[in-house]
Amino acid sequence: MKGSLTIVGLGPGAPELITPAVTDALKDSTDIVGYSKYIERVKDASGKSFHPSDNREEIDRAELSINLALQGKKVVVVSSGDPGVFAMASAIFEVVDKKNISRDDLPVVVLPGITALLAASARLGAPIGHDFCVINLSDNLKSWDILKSRVIAAAKADFVIAFYNPRSKSRKNQLSEIYDVLRKNCKSDRIVIYANSVSTDIRNTGYIYTPRYSGVEKN
Amino acid sequence: MKGSLTIVGLGPGAPELITPAVTDALKDSTDIVGYSKYIERVKDASGKSFHPSDNREEIDRAELSINLALQGKKVVVVSSGDPGVFAMASAIFEVVDKKNISRDDLPVVVLPGITALLAASARLGAPIGHDFCVINLSDNLKSWDILKSRVIAAAKADFVIAFYNPRSKSRKNQLSEIYDVLRKNCKSDRIVIYANSVSTDIRNTGYIYTPRYSGVEKN
Repeated sequence: MKGSLTIVGLGPGAPELITPAVTDALKDSTDIVGYSKYIERVKDASGKSFHPSDNREEIDRAELSINLALQGKKVVVVSSGDPGVFAMASAIFEVVDKKNISRDDLPVVVLPGITALLAASARLGAPIGHDFCVINLSDNLKSWDILKSRVIAAAKADFVIAFYNPRSKSRKNQLSEIYDVLRKNCKSDRIVIYANSVSTDIRNTGYIYTPRYSGVEKN
Repeated sequence: MKGSLTIVGLGPGAPELITPAVTDALKDSTDIVGYSKYIERVKDASGKSFHPSDNREEIDRAELSINLALQGKKVVVVSSGDPGVFAMASAIFEVVDKKNISRDDLPVVVLPGITALLAASARLGAPIGHDFCVINLSDNLKSWDILKSRVIAAAKADFVIAFYNPRSKSRKNQLSEIYDVLRKNCKSDRIVIYANSVSTDIRNTGYIYTPRYSGVEKN
């Protein structure tokens, strides 16, 4: 049997924000690979082999997924949000590329998901109705200088800016450095909004802030 | 009966990329408002009143939706992709704001959708694994100078850049002007990809280009 590898986005958390394409891919799979926290979200699926792993082990996870698929398994790799936005798609294609695996050997399918930015925006009203930038504050894969220069460019050009991965155990002070950059380069009326658990009770709560954004927590 | 107003994203085209949250909202509605092309996509729904209109009539559409909801209708406004990304959410909140309609008078709910960028990325592999910008090339709502300065800033800071609304009947020459800006400000190995109909047969086709992007149509 020919295996398959599908990288799917589970969206921000609410089950009703998982697309039917992803639900079908999970149903059709034999093996589900992912960060243990995301595997938790699909554990209801019965008769599947689950392969949970730690957050940082992207490349190991990619190799495991590819090997399972090459062995004939129908593998689904789960990401939170969208798999292309600072998530598993990059790691998988990096390994596919490095191992010179052709599309005939292993077709890889990516199924998009609702990334946190879209869910957060929905709860806020319409904050990204104009041009916006999405920046990963993790500097695991790029230098801090590049990161900072991008924040400056985005602030000066008056983009709405969404930051992903603002803080972690090993990156405690970077966010305040970014605030300094923003203070220097943004207009004084720039609003800062902190969003988490953006899809809880999404259908009933409506937008969180008034269109004028009064009451928004400011930096 | 108290009305409601829900602004939903239908995703890029494939029915299997419409979230269950949106499907439920459509089922629960009495009235569906939107650009006629998007209304076409939900016309199967029976027993609903449909209110199609032309593409450019965002504010009229917003006013109609709000009025219907204030009359007690359960109104769903349909957008393609995500309603917050250069779509109907902005127009609705603009009118809600102008008319000083409070959240108690009319709860407005926004339900996110798969925006074209995410669907295109999924088909391409992992092009937005790093920082990216999303720029609306329509200058209906901002000056051409602001638009150009943003493209320059994004190119210089080496963001991946996604352009929406690249061309229209009334904007025929702007795209080539943007190409000039990109030629001046991007590294020479910058890849340009044209994407449309990004969700056709999404589960079976897999990614379109190899991870090395060989064979990609270059500008």
